[in-house]
Amino acid sequence: MTETNSVQSSEFELIRWIQQQVGICDRLLCGIGDDCAIDQLPINQLLLTSNDLLIEDVHFTRAWISMFDLGRKSVAVNLSDIAAMGGTPRALFLGIGRSKHLKEADLKDFIRGFIHEAKQHDVVLAGGDTCGSPGPLIVSVTVQGQVPAGKAVARHGACCGDAIYVSGTLGDSALALKLLQSGQTPPPALAQRFHTPSARIDVGRYLSKNELATAMLDVSDGLLADMNHLLVASAVGAELDLAALPLSQAFRSALARDPGLIDLALAGGEDYELLFTSSRHDLEQTAMPAPGVAKIGHITAGAGIILRQDNGDMYQCLRPGFDHFATH
Amino acid sequence: MTETNSVQSSEFELIRWIQQQVGICDRLLCGIGDDCAIDQLPINQLLLTSNDLLIEDVHFTRAWISMFDLGRKSVAVNLSDIAAMGGTPRALFLGIGRSKHLKEADLKDFIRGFIHEAKQHDVVLAGGDTCGSPGPLIVSVTVQGQVPAGKAVARHGACCGDAIYVSGTLGDSALALKLLQSGQTPPPALAQRFHTPSARIDVGRYLSKNELATAMLDVSDGLLADMNHLLVASAVGAELDLAALPLSQAFRSALARDPGLIDLALAGGEDYELLFTSSRHDLEQTAMPAPGVAKIGHITAGAGIILRQDNGDMYQCLRPGFDHFATH
Repeated sequence: MTETNSVQSSEFELIRWIQQQVGICDRLLCGIGDDCAIDQLPINQLLLTSNDLLIEDVHFTRAWISMFDLGRKSVAVNLSDIAAMGGTPRALFLGIGRSKHLKEADLKDFIRGFIHEAKQHDVVLAGGDTCGSPGPLIVSVTVQGQVPAGKAVARHGACCGDAIYVSGTLGDSALALKLLQSGQTPPPALAQRFHTPSARIDVGRYLSKNELATAMLDVSDGLLADMNHLLVASAVGAELDLAALPLSQAFRSALARDPGLIDLALAGGEDYELLFTSSRHDLEQTAMPAPGVAKIGHITAGAGIILRQDNGDMYQCLRPGFDHFATH
Repeated sequence: MTETNSVQSSEFELIRWIQQQVGICDRLLCGIGDDCAIDQLPINQLLLTSNDLLIEDVHFTRAWISMFDLGRKSVAVNLSDIAAMGGTPRALFLGIGRSKHLKEADLKDFIRGFIHEAKQHDVVLAGGDTCGSPGPLIVSVTVQGQVPAGKAVARHGACCGDAIYVSGTLGDSALALKLLQSGQTPPPALAQRFHTPSARIDVGRYLSKNELATAMLDVSDGLLADMNHLLVASAVGAELDLAALPLSQAFRSALARDPGLIDLALAGGEDYELLFTSSRHDLEQTAMPAPGVAKIGHITAGAGIILRQDNGDMYQCLRPGFDHFATH
């Protein structure tokens, strides 16, 4: 509610610069620069939409991540929601609340990273909003995608007896964060999973196309919390095999020194892997798109999650879930 | 990046409460509660999307607006972008960054107002994101709408000789804000325009359906700033007739006491009226949907805006434009 000396102000100049970075996009009928973006979905494709807020010192800490990587990550965590439905992303919308101390060069690095990651997946930045923030840097991302009618994979379709799978490896991102929080430098393999996660678009689309998944979501709050969402939606329970959790070499090395770290793979959060159920019990042996999947358990008729150890004993995870409201 | 004692946490409880407020929606294939919302646009309809960030003490001041009205306004200012393309809104996505001092009852009032305004226009709250904010209250809104193929009205179609129209009245919202800023209570007619503006969906749709507008946008930054956007996009100029500006009775009363207030109608902002051009020069006499339109000038071959007074002299607006980055 304040004014500058010119209608040709910094906000409009920034928008013009962003338009130049995005370049020409043939897919959209109208992109950045009008009141709305205009898109036309192909026939028989459903529209998928998700959005996320990322707030400085809640979702990210500038001391730990470059602005370029933050831009990339802002895209990846949103694309992950499209992947979790088996969809293909089309367009992104970016709202930026610019904090007082954010230099223009840093803001541009953020946008360069954002557009870089979007282009990796053939997604276009189609619109947004820019303003000043009297507090933290604020990033609001909305992603739209498409999925053929009848092919979207929801959370509620898991059936008793279904096998449970997860893509990639678990806990890497949470371990990197734990090391950063204690003042250590995480090994590159872990840091990369924390700073520049990859949305598992190809895995999700393969499962959707071949109708292999009965229920799916992405692991953002931690395996147990997200597993619980899937179980509640499907009104079933699960038994997970602790020894079957897919762990990276870097994570296993740390685990060998501190067995308690297994809880980071169970409830660490920010994995951005796909967790899904299937009536097929051999998918881990299938030629899935990278990074492949691991079978970690099966759906039961009960409620809740049983964590089974190698010796048959039950395991109790001591790390609670993740709640974005709990930061204050 | 912090945790609570339970995965059944406040964030999930709030989302369940919001789901209950939204109720059952037949239109969406999937609404709140999965990784993405799923929607199916009717055949031959294009997808319109816009998004906005609203930040406490930048875009709103809690002392001046109830949380219910803030919820309504958050919807209206976004729907206004759909109106400006001649579209029909379908779905809204809401991101909330909850400030430390925001009580749950206030948050729920906000969401009640949001859903109330959405339902007025048959729009569904289809998804969103909730988290804590270490700073101000943050509201991120994305709106999706539809428009028949070939019927969207962009900013760039104005031609030399076109008449220029604006819906409703100008300056009411800015005058209400000026009174609030000086510690006065605005008359209800002005306060209502500031707190609960209405998106001119019916006007926009009428113009689009009947192919009456050559270019259109909504007046959010002030008439001159938004007129300038239209002119730059269309590569034309404009001559505006100062005496033709549509003003409310309440605004005229204030203007009689202080003629300088006319600048609020020219550059005050937050009008959320539609500004458009047309090859037809008699639209103000047409049976347009409420609140009707006024002819305020015409498009010229030159560049920039000439403001013409009754006596033929040019008028110089002393109030500059609006820049969301200028708050710090």
